[in-house]
Amino acid sequence: MSHPLFEQHRKTLDAARNAIRERTYWSAYPEIPSGRIYGESAKDDGLTAFQGRLNKPFNIEGQPGEVGRVGEESSPFGPALGVTYPKADLDTLLRASQSAQTSWRDAGVEARVGICLEILHRLNKRTFELANAVMHTTGQGFMMAFQAGGPHAQDRGLEAVAYAYDEMTRTPEKATWKKQVGKEEFITLEKRYRIMPRGVALEIGCSTFPTWNGYPGIFASLATGNSVVVKPHPGAILPLAITVEIARDVLKAAGMDPNVITLLADSLAAPVTKDVAIRPEVKVIDYTGGSEFGTWLEKNATQAVVFTEKAGVNAIVLDSCDDLKAMTGNLAFSLCLYSGQMCTTPQNIFIPKDGIDVGGERKSFDDVAGAIVKAVDWFLSEPRRAAEVLGAIQNDRTVMRIGESAKEGADVLRESAKMQNEAFPDARVHSPLIMKTDAGRKELFMREMFGPISYIIATDNTGQSIRLAAEGAKSCGAITAGVYSNDDAVLDRAVDALGEAGAAVSCNLTGQIFVNQAAAFSDFHVSGANPAGNATLCDSAFVSNRFRIVQSRVSV
Amino acid sequence: MSHPLFEQHRKTLDAARNAIRERTYWSAYPEIPSGRIYGESAKDDGLTAFQGRLNKPFNIEGQPGEVGRVGEESSPFGPALGVTYPKADLDTLLRASQSAQTSWRDAGVEARVGICLEILHRLNKRTFELANAVMHTTGQGFMMAFQAGGPHAQDRGLEAVAYAYDEMTRTPEKATWKKQVGKEEFITLEKRYRIMPRGVALEIGCSTFPTWNGYPGIFASLATGNSVVVKPHPGAILPLAITVEIARDVLKAAGMDPNVITLLADSLAAPVTKDVAIRPEVKVIDYTGGSEFGTWLEKNATQAVVFTEKAGVNAIVLDSCDDLKAMTGNLAFSLCLYSGQMCTTPQNIFIPKDGIDVGGERKSFDDVAGAIVKAVDWFLSEPRRAAEVLGAIQNDRTVMRIGESAKEGADVLRESAKMQNEAFPDARVHSPLIMKTDAGRKELFMREMFGPISYIIATDNTGQSIRLAAEGAKSCGAITAGVYSNDDAVLDRAVDALGEAGAAVSCNLTGQIFVNQAAAFSDFHVSGANPAGNATLCDSAFVSNRFRIVQSRVSV
Repeated sequence: MSHPLFEQHRKTLDAARNAIRERTYWSAYPEIPSGRIYGESAKDDGLTAFQGRLNKPFNIEGQPGEVGRVGEESSPFGPALGVTYPKADLDTLLRASQSAQTSWRDAGVEARVGICLEILHRLNKRTFELANAVMHTTGQGFMMAFQAGGPHAQDRGLEAVAYAYDEMTRTPEKATWKKQVGKEEFITLEKRYRIMPRGVALEIGCSTFPTWNGYPGIFASLATGNSVVVKPHPGAILPLAITVEIARDVLKAAGMDPNVITLLADSLAAPVTKDVAIRPEVKVIDYTGGSEFGTWLEKNATQAVVFTEKAGVNAIVLDSCDDLKAMTGNLAFSLCLYSGQMCTTPQNIFIPKDGIDVGGERKSFDDVAGAIVKAVDWFLSEPRRAAEVLGAIQNDRTVMRIGESAKEGADVLRESAKMQNEAFPDARVHSPLIMKTDAGRKELFMREMFGPISYIIATDNTGQSIRLAAEGAKSCGAITAGVYSNDDAVLDRAVDALGEAGAAVSCNLTGQIFVNQAAAFSDFHVSGANPAGNATLCDSAFVSNRFRIVQSRVSV
Repeated sequence: MSHPLFEQHRKTLDAARNAIRERTYWSAYPEIPSGRIYGESAKDDGLTAFQGRLNKPFNIEGQPGEVGRVGEESSPFGPALGVTYPKADLDTLLRASQSAQTSWRDAGVEARVGICLEILHRLNKRTFELANAVMHTTGQGFMMAFQAGGPHAQDRGLEAVAYAYDEMTRTPEKATWKKQVGKEEFITLEKRYRIMPRGVALEIGCSTFPTWNGYPGIFASLATGNSVVVKPHPGAILPLAITVEIARDVLKAAGMDPNVITLLADSLAAPVTKDVAIRPEVKVIDYTGGSEFGTWLEKNATQAVVFTEKAGVNAIVLDSCDDLKAMTGNLAFSLCLYSGQMCTTPQNIFIPKDGIDVGGERKSFDDVAGAIVKAVDWFLSEPRRAAEVLGAIQNDRTVMRIGESAKEGADVLRESAKMQNEAFPDARVHSPLIMKTDAGRKELFMREMFGPISYIIATDNTGQSIRLAAEGAKSCGAITAGVYSNDDAVLDRAVDALGEAGAAVSCNLTGQIFVNQAAAFSDFHVSGANPAGNATLCDSAFVSNRFRIVQSRVSV
């Protein structure tokens, strides 16, 4: 049974399904914030729409169980947003979610997938508005908020839909089973296989990438027939509230119960996540955030299938290179981008204490460390570029962490300083802190220090660098790792050791590609093979257990 | 990188991969215990081989950490087996398992899959020996032990390998990612995607279907690169010990470390399952058995991906039929087969108190209940047939349960009696107990009564029958359900309600096909959608989370 929205977006789906098999470059949604693509007025319209949200109640039309208001977001670039969201009675909300789930399930694969694709299409059209919402909750610079919060997040959502469609259609809806049991005797059964979603899915959002990290779980759950309760981080509600609003509009227009997706907002003072996460109605949980709470979910929300992306300690191993400037320039961008608040940002940079070979010449440890600092300094020397790349610090705890970590005994090579953002004088901007220590000081670097904090660590040799990087990944988790070497044997050894430790390894990156970037349809984000998380965005395992197959058979 | 064993068995694999997509009838291993298929001497050779195992130590050559002997199996058909198995030091065994896992992982997909297919091939050749081992541990009649313990179990193992192969090859090993970033400017990354198994997988066997329920998990874990520790039920070690022996022989002949699969035997008095299940090295667990321990695993072994098949309350809904004898004959066989010790055996038979329509004629509740009892009586009237179909009761607790349940207040329609088995005078044979009660006595029938115990329950009407059957599935779990009706609307309602409750529904089965049977490559055994288990034999979700994909990328 097809559906008009499925037919309308079928080409996009087919291309996405092909992309996840080929894993070459592909994207459905343009990443360039150009008027020619998004419409000449799109930029202004998006800003106006965003500003129109501020200092007002945000209503989720038709969502039941409102028992008050919550909302305490303030922009890392300055002012409080002043937006309030419905505070929901949990029992009422879950009842509505369960009730909507039945008809959503029965709508069938193509209706659900078609509606998901239409939601993504509409989200894409609203990218400028979403970009402003992402920017002023997460602290990302505008360009990053546009790309990562808009098209890249939409691509990740589409990728999840493509995986879900593949998995749901892997088994036919019907089959005739005919077994010969005698010379001319047969048993024939007509069998039917039904996709049975697990129930209510809970999306627990994060404060840094609410859409990019949220869309895969939301769309994987929706496509497979679960209803979704979106519980954003209290510091980054708006991007997901707009997402829920758009999704509900599409559902309603398609004749579905909009409570298939609902918003459950809370505050830091009165969090509801633990309560909802262990409710028996909740059968699927997607979580992005700190390790402690993620591990709590894995251990306690045993009534649900739990997908986590937690935190880790990402490492860079410097062994040798041809061009120090190209290497340190690339690294400096990775360290500066969004002030190190990406779960993929490197924290520990391992360099042999005797230095490295650079194009045949020996560079001392201090030379290389100095070159990294210099590259960061150069990056931040132009205020506009600095402002755009650094963005702002999402919350005060991160700012405090910068100050505290500088006093713990590592040598400070580059002090963090409060910086100005011309456009937003109240922005919470602090430049990266870079410290130097040695391999013996594990108490300093074998732990996650979230934010613009990095350690350059002197090791005995590259072998030790690789071992420590892998040890960090195994014990603390790691999502990414970077290696620079001119020696293929070193690269192989690093790729083996770090891969075994579950980190995605990037080798010899220079130019406009960075260790912290992961591209939908090609890169698997988080391996699920170390403490940094138990799941990947996206693979089959990310979708295949969100539903079950229940069969029936009739004797004929 | 291909492998000779992969090439040798490629056709079987391809046919299996096709079968899981088509889901029509297919089988790789012949279910007929014929000399023409298995060799004229196979039957005698198998018996001799089995007898040669008795009253002896069973050695697992080369398995480290032996610190004593365990073994207390006794045949439900009579004598103690007298076989002892190595008692293993857990630390040593797990270390050996971990150590073997690295090279197993690095052997690659085709080597692992080829070796798995060769193991299955060799298991098939040894079916007569395995059948005797299954018979004299589980209590299954010989024919059932041969079919379910041999080819059907091997088919289930092959099915798991086919799913695993599909999932592992869904992502290419390599891809070139080329993104245009300027008019003539490109970024190119060579990417590599590696299958990274989770680690040590634990197979926890059951006492009734050690091979049929064990092979899917064992082969899914092996194919995806995990090493497997097999922990059989203390009452049914031999079939899995022979399996481990054969698998180790194949591994060794293929140049692999045989500790890729090891045996961890224990006793009822000193069980080791809880200890091993929460060890950090154990990353995957497959379990078949009672609900209480299964739920304990789901809640406590949170370091592992846990797949459970637990127990439930299977129901039959009788609404109407054309031929009472055909219906009751089919039902009677389902109740007698292996003395109701299948996880798919019906327990609760719901009949409207005003009776049912049979070919246009009204048959009273008592008439229908009486016809079921009569059909069972007829079945057991011929001693040879009775012995073969009933088999023997696996353990004394089940015998005790029969006696106790008859005294709890339901009307006994058919008493259970101790029966003789001519060939095995000491066999533990007890005929089915059939009781009658009404819909109000939920305390009697809304619980699992494992063994040859069933309730015929008078309801207000078929609507109530369906509701109660679904309620039982939702609250106690259910794997199967059967419905008999001439009314398509009733069938649809029952299929919907029971399917929603996660039970696989069979409609109007008569003749040589039974509600308790599930065919590999076509039937999904256990839905995972109610308390009877969280997983299915087999689907993508059963294999896709046994490994992770870890990527690397190199700038070119």
